[in-house]
Amino acid sequence: MYAGGRAVKGTTNDREHPPAGKRDVGELRPDGMGEAITACAGGVTAPKGFLAAGIHCGVKKEKDDLCLLVSDPPATAAAVVTTNVVKAAPIVVVKEQLARSTSIRAIVVNSGNANACTGDRGMRDAWTMVRAAASAVGADESEVLVASTGVIGQFLPIETIEAGIPAAARQLSPTGGTAAARAIMTTDTFVKECAVKVTIGGVPVVVGGMAKGSGMIAPNMATMLGFVTTDADLSPALLHSALVKGTEHSFHRISVDGDTSTNDMVAVLANGTSGAGLLSDASDPGYALFCDALECVLLQLAHMIVRDGEGATKFVEIAVAGGATEEEAVTAARSIAGSSLVKTAIHGEDANWGRVLAAIGYSGIEFDPARVEICFGHVPVLRAGYVIDFSEEEAKKVLSRKDIRISVHLHRGGHNASFWTCDLSKQYVDINANYRT
Amino acid sequence: MYAGGRAVKGTTNDREHPPAGKRDVGELRPDGMGEAITACAGGVTAPKGFLAAGIHCGVKKEKDDLCLLVSDPPATAAAVVTTNVVKAAPIVVVKEQLARSTSIRAIVVNSGNANACTGDRGMRDAWTMVRAAASAVGADESEVLVASTGVIGQFLPIETIEAGIPAAARQLSPTGGTAAARAIMTTDTFVKECAVKVTIGGVPVVVGGMAKGSGMIAPNMATMLGFVTTDADLSPALLHSALVKGTEHSFHRISVDGDTSTNDMVAVLANGTSGAGLLSDASDPGYALFCDALECVLLQLAHMIVRDGEGATKFVEIAVAGGATEEEAVTAARSIAGSSLVKTAIHGEDANWGRVLAAIGYSGIEFDPARVEICFGHVPVLRAGYVIDFSEEEAKKVLSRKDIRISVHLHRGGHNASFWTCDLSKQYVDINANYRT
Repeated sequence: MYAGGRAVKGTTNDREHPPAGKRDVGELRPDGMGEAITACAGGVTAPKGFLAAGIHCGVKKEKDDLCLLVSDPPATAAAVVTTNVVKAAPIVVVKEQLARSTSIRAIVVNSGNANACTGDRGMRDAWTMVRAAASAVGADESEVLVASTGVIGQFLPIETIEAGIPAAARQLSPTGGTAAARAIMTTDTFVKECAVKVTIGGVPVVVGGMAKGSGMIAPNMATMLGFVTTDADLSPALLHSALVKGTEHSFHRISVDGDTSTNDMVAVLANGTSGAGLLSDASDPGYALFCDALECVLLQLAHMIVRDGEGATKFVEIAVAGGATEEEAVTAARSIAGSSLVKTAIHGEDANWGRVLAAIGYSGIEFDPARVEICFGHVPVLRAGYVIDFSEEEAKKVLSRKDIRISVHLHRGGHNASFWTCDLSKQYVDINANYRT
Repeated sequence: MYAGGRAVKGTTNDREHPPAGKRDVGELRPDGMGEAITACAGGVTAPKGFLAAGIHCGVKKEKDDLCLLVSDPPATAAAVVTTNVVKAAPIVVVKEQLARSTSIRAIVVNSGNANACTGDRGMRDAWTMVRAAASAVGADESEVLVASTGVIGQFLPIETIEAGIPAAARQLSPTGGTAAARAIMTTDTFVKECAVKVTIGGVPVVVGGMAKGSGMIAPNMATMLGFVTTDADLSPALLHSALVKGTEHSFHRISVDGDTSTNDMVAVLANGTSGAGLLSDASDPGYALFCDALECVLLQLAHMIVRDGEGATKFVEIAVAGGATEEEAVTAARSIAGSSLVKTAIHGEDANWGRVLAAIGYSGIEFDPARVEICFGHVPVLRAGYVIDFSEEEAKKVLSRKDIRISVHLHRGGHNASFWTCDLSKQYVDINANYRT
């Protein structure tokens, strides 16, 4: 029914009847792919050999603001970071660390302050966090990654964080995943974590993850942090490839407001404790399974971010079929997902296919508008040749749901792509206009 | 004080104290340029030899919805149309007409229905409007242009419009400019027209214009119509060049919501009745004067559209200096102007320079963030080297005004560009989510 998805056994898979509330477990879809993948409880501490903690150290007034994630033994790491030219200090530090060595034992994250646009002092503070975490968990400085999220342009209260890191280390626990996920939240309204299991070479392997983000979300990373752990064993090159491919199909295909942040990062740690053999060859069938499991976790986390989009009341999939290339399908889908007019129409539950067609029209792709077909849910609102003949009532019923799928057929080729976004509500304006008060 | 503007004598020119209300006459700026240009009353009928009418024919329930603009004698015409791949029928007709002949006697425009995405019948209806207007004013079919604006995807009530055109022709008047400007409005809240006078070769020449548009406004044309008239005399090639250059610096540098419409058009008619000689050589000093006057009118109309942006409460100039090229400065300015986070911060009157810097960061240009300077009005909020030391109170005072200027210095070269936008308010969401109710 839904192209491009991953099936996960034992999870909700009926789009038409999503569980209530914002805590829905993303999109787990019944298309028969990835039969080997099953959902499991927890997040970053679901795989073996990971400890985590989340505490309040004092960056924020009351809420938890410091997270520590530790792999024992050291893990192979890979990361994808923001494409914004303005890169926050921790992003620069992570790039430097991974360029030297991909063997990582800990990740330290603070929320409440992004340590962005803070010049030399920001760099010093990011390194201070690395050293403090290394010392607290008994690792080498080269074995620690760092991330920050929150307000831009203010110096970190670095003494507060330095004092907090040993306290967090004392709380490290193999069941600390949820506390860790809570401590990286900023404007998020719910904890974002998930985990899946896949059997590789007869051995069960777990991939778990947590993420934060709800504003400043755009296709190429955002104030969006994602951390994935696994007890699989991969070579650094293969782990990096898997992460790049996985983010391309997940975090790079969501948008809330189209603003790309300075602090985005998705990192993955693979510590090999599952006992499944080392994956170092891309043609190994176990690698394909791992990629599927990783993408499943990344996609679930990405969808949770969209569901938690600032002011969002609806979760919207834009599914474009019939592109001459996948890139073309993605470009059209991204343009629709980014249109304020489409997003407000969805908020108003109005079947305005004209705004959808216009957004494809200015996306930059070449196509024949007279061949385009558009459906809202199962209701065809525009048929080829500009034939418009649908029940407004039926379309309204589709749009009154919390989960909406807009599908477009370009009739140019066989390539498909989905993109996920949310509606644009007055609450988005409220949150972002009055965020200081 | 303001780079890139055109001075106009006899008009309000103090940005810090704009006249109250939305009817401000755009931006007429005191930088000493274009001394020869003076403002005058009226719009499209301000130049000699133009008649116009605006009536209610029945596309809309009550408001005026049909406009006729006639030049006597026939004028030389040029037009710039939407870049959207999805082009409404009247846009296709205008392109075909001007490809055959640039001698034009009339423009017929209806509001209330855009005749977009309407297939073969839409094309037939657009040609029917052309023929009806030609017949009503005694012109050849080849001498008429047509435009439509309003709802997308519905067939025109063509009999109603056909019946209305002769009625509009009977109302044609040399003082009909304002009625015409009113009849092309859709969600506009005020009439948009202006005119200027310039002396070319000792002979006074007038350029007048009207425009409509407030939603779906993006850099490359929008549901935005602009019609400019002049009694200057220009060769078709020179008139076209002047229009392309003028729109590049005006309509292509504004955005409200970033959505590019299917119906955008700016057309200019030059009928030569001023008695000033024919301009057919780009090196003629009279041509430069004409270009300045035309750009002045286009810029005023463009600014009126931004001021009337759906839900807009503030008019914002993004002035980027120090670009390595003009294109670079435009790219940075456009990115800032398009950021929902910047626009909501301005709505909330918050001096969030971080969002401005982040928007430059993802604009696609290369630059050193540590060298960037940002001012809100006269208040430097970010100095080079990430030095942040400003009075929040003073910044708040600037942001509490209706007219706000954000200036950015990239320190990469000597090229500057301005871009104009408005804030993003809850009312924008209201207008576009609930536009049918």
